[in-house]
Amino acid sequence: MKLLRYRAGGEVRPGLLDSAGAVRDLSAHLPDITGAVLGDETFSRLAVLDPVELPLVEGNPELAPCVGQTGKFLGIGLNYTDHAEEMGMALPEHPILFLKATSSICGPDDDVILPRGAVAADWEVELGVVIGTAAKYVSEDDALNHVAGYCVVNDVSERDYQTKLTGQWTKGKSCDTFGPIGPWLVTRDEVPDPQSLWLTCDVNGTRRQTGTTATMVFTVAQIISHLSQLMTLHPGDVIATGTPPGVGMGCKPQPVYLQPGDVMRLEIEGLGVQTQTVRSDD
Amino acid sequence: MKLLRYRAGGEVRPGLLDSAGAVRDLSAHLPDITGAVLGDETFSRLAVLDPVELPLVEGNPELAPCVGQTGKFLGIGLNYTDHAEEMGMALPEHPILFLKATSSICGPDDDVILPRGAVAADWEVELGVVIGTAAKYVSEDDALNHVAGYCVVNDVSERDYQTKLTGQWTKGKSCDTFGPIGPWLVTRDEVPDPQSLWLTCDVNGTRRQTGTTATMVFTVAQIISHLSQLMTLHPGDVIATGTPPGVGMGCKPQPVYLQPGDVMRLEIEGLGVQTQTVRSDD
Repeated sequence: MKLLRYRAGGEVRPGLLDSAGAVRDLSAHLPDITGAVLGDETFSRLAVLDPVELPLVEGNPELAPCVGQTGKFLGIGLNYTDHAEEMGMALPEHPILFLKATSSICGPDDDVILPRGAVAADWEVELGVVIGTAAKYVSEDDALNHVAGYCVVNDVSERDYQTKLTGQWTKGKSCDTFGPIGPWLVTRDEVPDPQSLWLTCDVNGTRRQTGTTATMVFTVAQIISHLSQLMTLHPGDVIATGTPPGVGMGCKPQPVYLQPGDVMRLEIEGLGVQTQTVRSDD
Repeated sequence: MKLLRYRAGGEVRPGLLDSAGAVRDLSAHLPDITGAVLGDETFSRLAVLDPVELPLVEGNPELAPCVGQTGKFLGIGLNYTDHAEEMGMALPEHPILFLKATSSICGPDDDVILPRGAVAADWEVELGVVIGTAAKYVSEDDALNHVAGYCVVNDVSERDYQTKLTGQWTKGKSCDTFGPIGPWLVTRDEVPDPQSLWLTCDVNGTRRQTGTTATMVFTVAQIISHLSQLMTLHPGDVIATGTPPGVGMGCKPQPVYLQPGDVMRLEIEGLGVQTQTVRSDD
């Protein structure tokens, strides 16, 4: 299933994408798509519905983040071997963890707004993992059983805030609108192998990032297992699992950063497309 | 006012402390103490109540975190001049920011549980700031108007996770139960100057930390103003503003870390006392 959340008259409503690509309303079956409903029980209940009998949402509804009330938005740094090579950095021994503020989360096609004075904002297409059942001290073998599904994440990052504003990457990762997630939460039954998905990011029609989750340093299962030794991963938590080569910071002969009016288009195999326009907050 | 949340039969209920130190129930006036109710409107409404006419909560109720549904748990590193000196570190140019996972939040007197394999857990008494109204691009002069109140925070930190598990402090700061907050949310009218509070931490009856918020590198107002340039601070967000000298990592001739059975007692002038027992999860 491709679950989604859409905006209608100031509200956010749950929906799903039917096989023709149309949005169908799920309000009669779920209050919302949040950690509270992401278990197998809900998925079994939804699986027996015939999408074409659900109410069709007319027009082209604006999409909200594909999961609501996320408690933790976890990010993994330097997690692609080819990206580490591009940056001239050694592979990490353990997954590098940072947190993005959950207040950075926005819809997949919402504008990305540069905070006043930001000059070095960058794109990062990433495989997002949405936790479905609480995970604590889980093994690598069991880890994927705790996944509800997958989504596209743009881990937008202001490089000066990340590196020059004194320690920790959080400042550059947590600005409002720096966390588009969606378009859909694609349930894990539709993603048999999260380690064989291609992913791309275009900026103004120019291909900037191309990669495959096959070159991750730490697999999704390893990341979940590792993090769950440290803290409980709760339903609705989202993990952005790192970005492949081609970020603006790595461009030669000099970095290329986002400017107002730029358009980003991110896609992951089977998980859909995000499109954001960059806007200034000055 | 000293607002609090207490546990009763599997539920968390809102309350306040009366002048005799007894807990009074606020359920008839508020659904809970969360960002959604932390505005001046609520405080004005509560201010006209006579605490002794509110239902008395008998016995010694267990306290929950003094604010619920916190969206962001922000931490400031190396923010006391005397602590920086103790650690032999230069003062930061800007507030060092890290995020603690909100899933680390627990009640002020709950057990602190060492994750399996943790060997270097440390205490950090800190002044906690609870945001009352959304803050974006606020000036230092206006910053404190966005504060709902203050509380004690224990920014429990596993130093090996923080420094040896590859980059970023988050891993050592985010373990379950590593964020006791409370006992009370003391509204800002009772804290005329947040830069003149003494704070202490005792472990097993031995005074380990003594400090005053007067030696902060960045004041509460400066921290709020700085963070609000980067992201919106939302009602219910909690900022732990750094710790004074005396952490276990800084003990001579060698660091002293928490062991199962240890008891921490943290106090801040006017904000009350926390007491936690350390327990192993092995």
